[in-house]
Amino acid sequence: MVGLRYAQLLDRHPWFRVTFLAGSERTRGQTYQQATGGEAPASLAALPIHGLDALQPALERCELVFSCIGDRETAHSAEEKYATAGLAVVSNTAAHRGCPTVPVVIPEINASHLDVLPQQKWKAPLIAKPNCSLQSYLLPLATIHKSHRLKHAIITTMQAVSGAGRTGVGSVAILDNLIPFISREEEKNQTEPLKILGTVTKEGIRPASDIELSAHCNRISVLDGHIACVSVAFESNPSEEEILAAWSQCEGLALPSAPKRPILYRPEPDRPQPRLDRDASGGMSVTCGRLRPCPVLQWRFVGLSHNMIRGAAGGGILNAELLVTSHHWYGTQPPSR
Amino acid sequence: MVGLRYAQLLDRHPWFRVTFLAGSERTRGQTYQQATGGEAPASLAALPIHGLDALQPALERCELVFSCIGDRETAHSAEEKYATAGLAVVSNTAAHRGCPTVPVVIPEINASHLDVLPQQKWKAPLIAKPNCSLQSYLLPLATIHKSHRLKHAIITTMQAVSGAGRTGVGSVAILDNLIPFISREEEKNQTEPLKILGTVTKEGIRPASDIELSAHCNRISVLDGHIACVSVAFESNPSEEEILAAWSQCEGLALPSAPKRPILYRPEPDRPQPRLDRDASGGMSVTCGRLRPCPVLQWRFVGLSHNMIRGAAGGGILNAELLVTSHHWYGTQPPSR
Amino acid sequence: MVGLRYAQLLDRHPWFRVTFLAGSERTRGQTYQQATGGEAPASLAALPIHGLDALQPALERCELVFSCIGDRETAHSAEEKYATAGLAVVSNTAAHRGCPTVPVVIPEINASHLDVLPQQKWKAPLIAKPNCSLQSYLLPLATIHKSHRLKHAIITTMQAVSGAGRTGVGSVAILDNLIPFISREEEKNQTEPLKILGTVTKEGIRPASDIELSAHCNRISVLDGHIACVSVAFESNPSEEEILAAWSQCEGLALPSAPKRPILYRPEPDRPQPRLDRDASGGMSVTCGRLRPCPVLQWRFVGLSHNMIRGAAGGGILNAELLVTSHHWYGTQPPSR
Amino acid sequence: MVGLRYAQLLDRHPWFRVTFLAGSERTRGQTYQQATGGEAPASLAALPIHGLDALQPALERCELVFSCIGDRETAHSAEEKYATAGLAVVSNTAAHRGCPTVPVVIPEINASHLDVLPQQKWKAPLIAKPNCSLQSYLLPLATIHKSHRLKHAIITTMQAVSGAGRTGVGSVAILDNLIPFISREEEKNQTEPLKILGTVTKEGIRPASDIELSAHCNRISVLDGHIACVSVAFESNPSEEEILAAWSQCEGLALPSAPKRPILYRPEPDRPQPRLDRDASGGMSVTCGRLRPCPVLQWRFVGLSHNMIRGAAGGGILNAELLVTSHHWYGTQPPSR
Repeated sequence: MVGLRYAQLLDRHPWFRVTFLAGSERTRGQTYQQATGGEAPASLAALPIHGLDALQPALERCELVFSCIGDRETAHSAEEKYATAGLAVVSNTAAHRGCPTVPVVIPEINASHLDVLPQQKWKAPLIAKPNCSLQSYLLPLATIHKSHRLKHAIITTMQAVSGAGRTGVGSVAILDNLIPFISREEEKNQTEPLKILGTVTKEGIRPASDIELSAHCNRISVLDGHIACVSVAFESNPSEEEILAAWSQCEGLALPSAPKRPILYRPEPDRPQPRLDRDASGGMSVTCGRLRPCPVLQWRFVGLSHNMIRGAAGGGILNAELLVTSHHWYGTQPPSR
Repeated sequence: MVGLRYAQLLDRHPWFRVTFLAGSERTRGQTYQQATGGEAPASLAALPIHGLDALQPALERCELVFSCIGDRETAHSAEEKYATAGLAVVSNTAAHRGCPTVPVVIPEINASHLDVLPQQKWKAPLIAKPNCSLQSYLLPLATIHKSHRLKHAIITTMQAVSGAGRTGVGSVAILDNLIPFISREEEKNQTEPLKILGTVTKEGIRPASDIELSAHCNRISVLDGHIACVSVAFESNPSEEEILAAWSQCEGLALPSAPKRPILYRPEPDRPQPRLDRDASGGMSVTCGRLRPCPVLQWRFVGLSHNMIRGAAGGGILNAELLVTSHHWYGTQPPSR
Repeated sequence: MVGLRYAQLLDRHPWFRVTFLAGSERTRGQTYQQATGGEAPASLAALPIHGLDALQPALERCELVFSCIGDRETAHSAEEKYATAGLAVVSNTAAHRGCPTVPVVIPEINASHLDVLPQQKWKAPLIAKPNCSLQSYLLPLATIHKSHRLKHAIITTMQAVSGAGRTGVGSVAILDNLIPFISREEEKNQTEPLKILGTVTKEGIRPASDIELSAHCNRISVLDGHIACVSVAFESNPSEEEILAAWSQCEGLALPSAPKRPILYRPEPDRPQPRLDRDASGGMSVTCGRLRPCPVLQWRFVGLSHNMIRGAAGGGILNAELLVTSHHWYGTQPPSR
Repeated sequence: MVGLRYAQLLDRHPWFRVTFLAGSERTRGQTYQQATGGEAPASLAALPIHGLDALQPALERCELVFSCIGDRETAHSAEEKYATAGLAVVSNTAAHRGCPTVPVVIPEINASHLDVLPQQKWKAPLIAKPNCSLQSYLLPLATIHKSHRLKHAIITTMQAVSGAGRTGVGSVAILDNLIPFISREEEKNQTEPLKILGTVTKEGIRPASDIELSAHCNRISVLDGHIACVSVAFESNPSEEEILAAWSQCEGLALPSAPKRPILYRPEPDRPQPRLDRDASGGMSVTCGRLRPCPVLQWRFVGLSHNMIRGAAGGGILNAELLVTSHHWYGTQPPSR
C-alpha cells in the first residue's frame, strides 16, 4: 500500500521520475500493473518489477531509492547494499533508524541532521523517516520545544488500520472493536522523537536527554489518519497564546511536497477528526485542536496526521526533496528549477 | 436503551419486580411493548407507561425507583419529587451527583458512603451512580489507592456509541472516524472520582483532595464497552506484584448482581478488547490488561467495562441491592432471603 | 448534507452563482457558516439564511432555485410558490415527481422530457430528479432499452447511510448490521424508472408500460455510494458484446457537470466497490461490473453511483444545466459561453 | 474460527465428547490452548494437536470426525482417509459435496438423503453440509416447495466477514465498503440447493431439475449473519397465508441441537437484521421477514441465518446428531438417552 502511494505521488512529481522497481519474490517478473491488481498509475503500469538483488540495472537507471520494504531484515541488507553501491536511500523502514549516523528526519524539525551524513560509511547517503504515529504530535511539540524545552509527555495514539498494511488487521479483529496494542509501536514513540530532537556530534546523532515520553498505542476502526491525545509539560510553561502563535507561525519549507502551513489548528471543540481532517494540505499538514490545560501536566491537545501520506510516502518524498537540495547530495546535480 | 437494559436485567432479578413505568410525553399512554418497538421482555410488555407526574400510582405500586431520565432538568425535579414523596431513588443521571448528601456509589469502592443518607432532606434515600466512563478504570485505581494513595492519573477513554443513546451518534459522523470530544465527559471524569474516593463528614461527602486527574474522552466506532488507557502515580509506588495481587484479591460483594471477581486481568499483550471482554461476568466485571511501567508517571494499564451494564443498568441495580441491604433503607423491610 | 454538497459544487461552477439561501426555521437568520458548523465554502460563508416564505428577496436575487427540502409537504408548497412566482425550480425532492407535467430527468436518458414543460401551469419551469438509488442502474438499463426494450428487472440495492441524511441512520442501528428496509424506497424504484422511460403526450408524461420492476432496498454500513445487483430481461435478448458496446459508447453531454463517459465498466471480478469507484468522474459516472448471464432472467450486473453527487447535488446541477441550455428556459437568457 | 465454534458448542454437548484434534502443520504439536491464542474451552485447552496424517491415534480415540479443513485438496484426501479407515466423517467443506453418494444435508429438509449412504464405498459414512450462505433462504423455500414446487428464484446475499475466516477479509478492504463478489459462492448457491432438493436413486442423489436459481453474492461489513433478499416463483402460486402457515408450522427435529422452531417470522417492516436476529434459537433458526408480492416473480422475502452456527459448526453438529440416530450409523451404538 505504501509503495502504491509512492507511485501515485511520484507520478506527478516535478523533480522525480520512477525508472525502476524492485520487490519481493512474490512480484518479481510481474509488471507493476499486475502486481497492483490494476491500481498502478498509467505511466508506471508497464514497468517490470525486479528482484531486490538486481543491483546493476538499478545503478544504471536511478540515483535515489525509496525503500518501503516490509521485512526488517530484508530492508536492512537491501538498504545497505544500495547505499554502498552509490544509490542514495530514503527509507520508510525502521531498519536503520537506530544507527547514529542515519538521520531520522521530519524536515520542518531537524533538516540540520543531514550534517551527520559525512560520517556515514556508505558511498551514497541513507536517511530515514520516523514511525508514522509520531507525525501526529511531534511537529507540534517540537515547535514549542525550541523556546520552552520539552520535559515530558504522555501520548495515547489511535491509529488507522492502513498503518498495518493491506492484510495487517483483519476485519473480524477490528469491526465493533479496538485493539490496545501495536507491536513495538510504543517503543518507537518513546525513542525516535528523542533522536529527532537530538544534536549532531562527532559520534553521530546524540538523542535529546532529559525528556521522558510515555505512549499508549491503539488500533481503531478507521481507514486512514493517526490521531493522538497528548498531555505535555515543558521546562518553562508556555501560555496558550504562545503555543497557538508558534503553531500558526510554523512555516512551510520551499520544497514541492511541503505544506505551506505544516500545522493547522481547528478551533471547534470536536476537531480534529480523522475522516474530516486527514487530507488537509494533501495529507501533508498536521491538524491540531482542543488545546486546553492539563490538570496533571501543563497542556493537553489532540493531533492528527495522514499516516499514508505525511506518515509514509509523502513524508519520504519530502525527505528526498530535502536531501536533493542539500549540499550533502553527492553523486548527482541538484535538479535545475 | 438504558431503560430497556434495566427491563431485561430486572426481568429475572431475584429481589426486584417491575410494577410501574413512567416516561416522557412521547411514550405516555403506550404499553411498554409499543414504546420499545417490540423489544420489551414478555413480563413487562403489557405494562402501561405513565407520565412523570403520575406520583400517586407510583406510590401505590412501588417502593424504589430507577431513574434514567435523559434530560437533566427533568431528571432533577422528578428525582426530588419521588424521594420527597417517600420513594427511594437509584439514579443513573448526573442530576444529583454534585449534591454533597447524595452518594455517588460504586459498591465495591464506597459502600460506606451510604452513611451520608441520614443527612438527606427527603423522605426516602436518593443515591446515584457515576458516569459510565469512570467504571473502566476507577475500581482498579481505588483498589490500589487504599494502600498507596492515588496521586495523579492521565486517562484517555475510547467510548462506545451506545453511551450516547440510540440517536446520539449518527453513522455519518462516526463511520471511518473518531470524535475526540464528548460534551462534559472530561469534567465528570475529573471530579466524580474524587467524590467517590472522598469521606463522609457532617457537611456531606467531602471529595478527596491532593488527587489530580486529567481525562481525554473520545468516541469511537464500537457498539458497547468503554476502554481507558491510564498512566498513574501513587504516593508510595506499588510494585507490579502488589498491583496484580490487589486486583486479583478484590472480592465481590454478596449481592445478586455483584460479580465474584470485580477485576479481571488478562495477561495477553493485546487485551482487553471491547468486543472480546465487555461481557465478562455478565458485563459486571472490569477487565484490565497491559500493566507496565510508565516512563513519565509510575504505571500504565488498560481498563475496560461494559458501559450499558456495569456502566448503566447493571450498576444501578447493584446500587439498589446495596441500598436495600443496608441499614439505611427505611420505609420497607429488606428482602427475606 | 445535500445542501452543503450543492454549495461545494456550485462554488466553482462556471455558469451558476449562489446569491440567496433559504432554509428551515431552525437556521433562519443564521449565516451559512453558522448553519453548517463551519463547513460552508468561503464564498458563501457570510450569506444569510432566509425563511422559506421570503419570496421577494429570492425573486430579486435569483432566477433558478435548487430545492432539497427534507419535509415533503414543505417541499411541495415551497416549490409551487417559487415556480408560480417565476423562479425556475430544479428539485431533488419527491414532492412533484408524480405530477404528469413535471419531468423526472436523468439528462443522458430523457432530456427530451423537457418538451412537457409548456404544459406546466407555473410561470417558470419545475423539473425533478429521481430518487438517488435509481442512478446506480437505470442509465445502464436505459442504454440497452433503446434497442432491445426492457421487459423486467429484479434489483437489490445496498445503500449508503448518507442517503438518509446526517441523522437518518444512527450508529447504534447500523454498526455490525444491515437494515433490509428503507421507507418508500422500493416503491420509488418500481415507479420512477417507468416515468423516466415514458413518453411526452398531450396529457403530460405517460409512463412506460409493459415493464415490471421489483426492488429490494437495503441500508448498509457504507458512507457514500449506492450499489445495485440487477437481474434483467429484455424483449430481444442482447448479446454480451452488444451490452458492453452500448455502455462504452454511451456519450457524455456537452454540459459542464456531465461526465465524458457516463457509464464506466470495470472488468475485474470484484468491482465496482463503493469506496473505490464512487468518485469516478467526480462522482458523476455510473460504474458497472460483473456482467454475466442470469439463469432465471437474461443478464446480471452490478451498478454503482455516488448517491450524494450524481444521485443528489451533482445530478440536480446537471439538470439545471440542461434546463438552462434548452429552448424551454424562459425568463432569462442562456449563459453566454 | 469454525473449529473454535465446534469446540465451544461440543464442550457442552450431551452426546459428543472431543477426544482428539488434528490440524495443519502450523499448529501440529501445540496444545489447543496455544493454537487458539487462549480462546479454547477449558476442557479442551490441554489437548494436543496432531497432524492430519495421524490416523492411528484418531482411530483409537474417536468414532466420528468433524472436518472443517480450509484447503479443498487437503480436505478431500483427509476426509477420504478417515472414512476409509472407519471413522464417520461429518464435513463442513466443499470437498465431497459434488459426489453423488455423499448427501449434502440440512436435516429439516432432506434427512432422508442418508438413504444414499449404503452406496458409499468407504468403511464409515461421510456426510456434508452445504455452503453457509444457502442456510438463510433454502429451508424457507424448501418448506413451500413440498406443496407448491419451486420454479425459480433470484437471490442476493449479503454475507458476514466471518464467513471468510479470521484473515479472509482485511479491514482495509471492507471498511466503508462492500465487495460484490465471493469466489465460487454464486455457483454453490445455484447448484447445492438442487442436490438438497433432489432424490435418492440407485446412481446416488439426483439433483432436482426444472429449478433455476440465480445468485448475487456480496460481502458486507457485518461480523456474523448472512442475509438474503429473495424473489421467487413456484409452479403453483401459494397465498401469503399458505407461506406464513407453512413456515410457522415447520417443526423442529428431536435432536439436541435442533431448534424447536427452525423458521421464525418477524412481522416488523425492517427485520430480520443480522445483529438483532442472528442469535435466534442459539443461532440455529432461520429468521424471515418482509414477505410481500414480487412484481416480476411471485413473492419476495428476506432470510437470515447465523453463518458460524447454523451455517457452520452448529449445522455440522446437527448433521452428526442426525447420522448418529439414523439406522445408517454403523460401527458404534447410538447414544443411550
